[in-house]
Amino acid sequence: MKNKYFSVLPIGGVEEIGSNMTLIKTDSEQIVVDCGMLFPYEECFDINYLIPDFAALDASKLTTIIITHGHEDHIGGLAHFLKEFPEVTVYTTKFTLSLIQRKLEEHKVSFQYKIYEPDSELSFKSVNVYPVHVNHSIPETSGLIIRTKDKSWGALYISDFKVDLNSKHEAPIDFRRIKQLLSECKKTAYFLDSTNILNDGKTTSEGELLSDLRSLMDREEDRVFITLFASNVHRMNEIAKMGKASGRKLVIMGRSLKTYMEAAFETGHSDLAPDEFYMPDQAKGLTGKMLVFLSGCQGDFLSALRRFSFGEDSTFKPGPKDVVVFSSKVIPGNEKKIYRIYNKLTEFGATIITASDHLIHASGHPGKEDLHLLMKNFTPDFYFPIHGESYFLKKHYDFIKESYPTVRPYLIYNYQEVILGDDAVKIEEHESKEPRLIHGKAIEIEKTQVSQRRKMATQGAVFISYHKSIGHIEITTLGLPLMAQDLIDNLKKKLLEQIRKDLVSREETYFKDQVKISTRQFYNNFLGYKPMTEVHLY
Amino acid sequence: MKNKYFSVLPIGGVEEIGSNMTLIKTDSEQIVVDCGMLFPYEECFDINYLIPDFAALDASKLTTIIITHGHEDHIGGLAHFLKEFPEVTVYTTKFTLSLIQRKLEEHKVSFQYKIYEPDSELSFKSVNVYPVHVNHSIPETSGLIIRTKDKSWGALYISDFKVDLNSKHEAPIDFRRIKQLLSECKKTAYFLDSTNILNDGKTTSEGELLSDLRSLMDREEDRVFITLFASNVHRMNEIAKMGKASGRKLVIMGRSLKTYMEAAFETGHSDLAPDEFYMPDQAKGLTGKMLVFLSGCQGDFLSALRRFSFGEDSTFKPGPKDVVVFSSKVIPGNEKKIYRIYNKLTEFGATIITASDHLIHASGHPGKEDLHLLMKNFTPDFYFPIHGESYFLKKHYDFIKESYPTVRPYLIYNYQEVILGDDAVKIEEHESKEPRLIHGKAIEIEKTQVSQRRKMATQGAVFISYHKSIGHIEITTLGLPLMAQDLIDNLKKKLLEQIRKDLVSREETYFKDQVKISTRQFYNNFLGYKPMTEVHLY
Repeated sequence: MKNKYFSVLPIGGVEEIGSNMTLIKTDSEQIVVDCGMLFPYEECFDINYLIPDFAALDASKLTTIIITHGHEDHIGGLAHFLKEFPEVTVYTTKFTLSLIQRKLEEHKVSFQYKIYEPDSELSFKSVNVYPVHVNHSIPETSGLIIRTKDKSWGALYISDFKVDLNSKHEAPIDFRRIKQLLSECKKTAYFLDSTNILNDGKTTSEGELLSDLRSLMDREEDRVFITLFASNVHRMNEIAKMGKASGRKLVIMGRSLKTYMEAAFETGHSDLAPDEFYMPDQAKGLTGKMLVFLSGCQGDFLSALRRFSFGEDSTFKPGPKDVVVFSSKVIPGNEKKIYRIYNKLTEFGATIITASDHLIHASGHPGKEDLHLLMKNFTPDFYFPIHGESYFLKKHYDFIKESYPTVRPYLIYNYQEVILGDDAVKIEEHESKEPRLIHGKAIEIEKTQVSQRRKMATQGAVFISYHKSIGHIEITTLGLPLMAQDLIDNLKKKLLEQIRKDLVSREETYFKDQVKISTRQFYNNFLGYKPMTEVHLY
Repeated sequence: MKNKYFSVLPIGGVEEIGSNMTLIKTDSEQIVVDCGMLFPYEECFDINYLIPDFAALDASKLTTIIITHGHEDHIGGLAHFLKEFPEVTVYTTKFTLSLIQRKLEEHKVSFQYKIYEPDSELSFKSVNVYPVHVNHSIPETSGLIIRTKDKSWGALYISDFKVDLNSKHEAPIDFRRIKQLLSECKKTAYFLDSTNILNDGKTTSEGELLSDLRSLMDREEDRVFITLFASNVHRMNEIAKMGKASGRKLVIMGRSLKTYMEAAFETGHSDLAPDEFYMPDQAKGLTGKMLVFLSGCQGDFLSALRRFSFGEDSTFKPGPKDVVVFSSKVIPGNEKKIYRIYNKLTEFGATIITASDHLIHASGHPGKEDLHLLMKNFTPDFYFPIHGESYFLKKHYDFIKESYPTVRPYLIYNYQEVILGDDAVKIEEHESKEPRLIHGKAIEIEKTQVSQRRKMATQGAVFISYHKSIGHIEITTLGLPLMAQDLIDNLKKKLLEQIRKDLVSREETYFKDQVKISTRQFYNNFLGYKPMTEVHLY
């Protein structure tokens, strides 16, 4: 490869869903696109989130991070990123900026930013970046076109989008701009969203939901509760207006809905004014026709929806005259949590309405028909499925290979750098780094320590202290069946005997290890598993 | 209510899926139907399973347990049941008996049993019970008709079934017998399966899968791997025969497949002989055309499928020339585990085929059309949705209410006793008991203890011992971020100061409590959460 123009290195998001982060590299410069969080696999007990590892970034060349939109899997790692790279400028749109500011304030991180418009040109040392308006499930989402100054290469990068021809709130994805900017280039590549590739058809438009949503507002029940993804402020705005038109008082319950709505009020994405909504403390004792928005459509443990559904909310209790609407889908992995909520609401007698009953939810990602529309508008030379688990990337790859024989698709994963050269593409593999686990006050916790948590969670813990000079032993347990506590006297006797016989004169590490081994063995005989054991010795 | 004939009291399975157990009560006798296990909600760390509480049973009246079929949610609690009620006779069919014997042998529980035929009559003091052949996803599944001797009441109870008109291995559900036995009764009731009520159509027949399954056996790849629910031995038998016919060697990997196949060999449910299958130790180095059955279609942690997919199996490693077939569905809650397996296999280059790609899985539960067929055959006076989470029971209730205006449906949950009286039905609510948690060597673990595990899993643990006479303190931690260990010296200093100032002369409980409070507070300031803390004092 004689000339290398620029390269695209995915650090997160291409293998699993979440923690999206991509590095655009030229010889002289590094530009990061997005810095998101990943929600943990269930075995990482209570870990709040994971963020990408930043080891691949070169602080001396890194000038810029461009944010494509305000979802957590694109901005959730930003506070950690800016702590490590405080000099970097954040490029973002107004609405997303408002979300970022709220988040960074919490983390007490200050930062410099520039606001970009969807039809602007961002000029860097050897490439230009052109934001492109796309449709998604949150306002102000952009794709990016990256072009070399000499137009020898142009790449379209859209991690999240759909083609929405009937949205009430925004224009369709800007096909004209994509075609215009890329057809000037000698070689072109697409990097596109794989999330919804199992859908053979066209993703539903937000506009198609309005009629069913309206019919729900017109129901005779006084109280309609509704939950949806808080970031979908356009849909929330439409539902609120319909609720108001049906004579319902509007109530917002839950922090995340409040946050997104505040950003919407601030940046012109709401047709209603803040004072048209009741907040929970103002809603106590409210009667008559009302529409109550509940945060937490995924059944999150501390959410307003869960609290309400379990009868634990102090403002509203569910009852047989209530309707609860889920204008959302179940994200894989959350099924059990959400079904528990359905069950609880059913047991209180409430009526549940989901997207299986009415057309009240639309995905924000492209089905195969959406991708066909984009390919019809402009067909690139190379194609890279991104934003998806490996299985989805492969399905996306197969789809392109079968449908577009002139296009060359590649299957890439995190840490595989796509180098755009003269007439060719080269893939260079880098050592991959696992995402970092974040817990509590935004503190990193190491894998070894999470593994200790797992052991205590599944096998309990035993604490033993032994006082040599008085020959006294104390044993307490946590997380063992009560019958195991009844065995403590036997264990004491056994250990004291072993100490007297073999351990009394041995050095500390050996002593502790032997006591540990015997204790774990002792319990294993009764329980079938070995508790974590800690020994103190005096 | 003048005369009370008999009553039906669900103890498990009517509110959540699993731990099915129902009590048939007359004045003089108690008959239990099934005793299953429930798989835990994810928050019960590593708990193996839950079983129903037996407090509602009266040992002096309890003579019989009837097993409807051999799924774990119907027989998984039997060892615990028979330990508490060793005098009870188990009524079962041959195949199910073979499964039960294997299970009880492991638990070292002996028992007495009687084998029933699907067209027999089991006579008890005041009722007769008539097993009825039904279709399901495991051989030898029965519904039960319970009739008073004087035929004033007849109830059909089928917790799991579908209507399969095209199975190769068994006759369709015995509609004739249901109609005949119930139409002789004055009053009748149905207790029926709600699992698949969200399906508006007809459940697919096992026979309809054969053509797509056969086409997979004819693929050109040498190695076809296939996973399915181990209990579906009829399907396994068909697939094995097709594999053999395509010239493939047959391999069985995984304990649960082996167990069910052994029961099938023993009781005439396999057309192949045991020696036509290779076991893992015989399959090492096997080449050429083969069909490998893998246990663990739900992605279970210790299963053959997971081991293979992660490249950790010593006999077979996945590669680009392999096909892996999922003749199964994803049980809600297992999505993440199964998608990880899809991802791993994709990364090894293997081709994945699921029931979304071909017609290769059929549910064992009735869709609405199946229920219509049953209702068309015979329509009862009363109707009780069972076997399902509350949300599904309600959907089932709504369906019957809308479709059959002459039928009176009731929504019942666990511990609501249905009393069948002269002309009416009465529901009597009993105090409900939570299922019991079982872990390790089949030992019960209390909720309080599981809650300790949860706290250690999410907040770590600190172990402190203090030696008064020498004024020495030792502190160790488990499951805390490494930065928290760097803080131990600060914590020691702080605690020693507090002890010297306030605690040195206080009594033990107060001393320990104060040290705990300070420690948890100390870490909370840094981490944002409070570790479990244990204190020993000398």
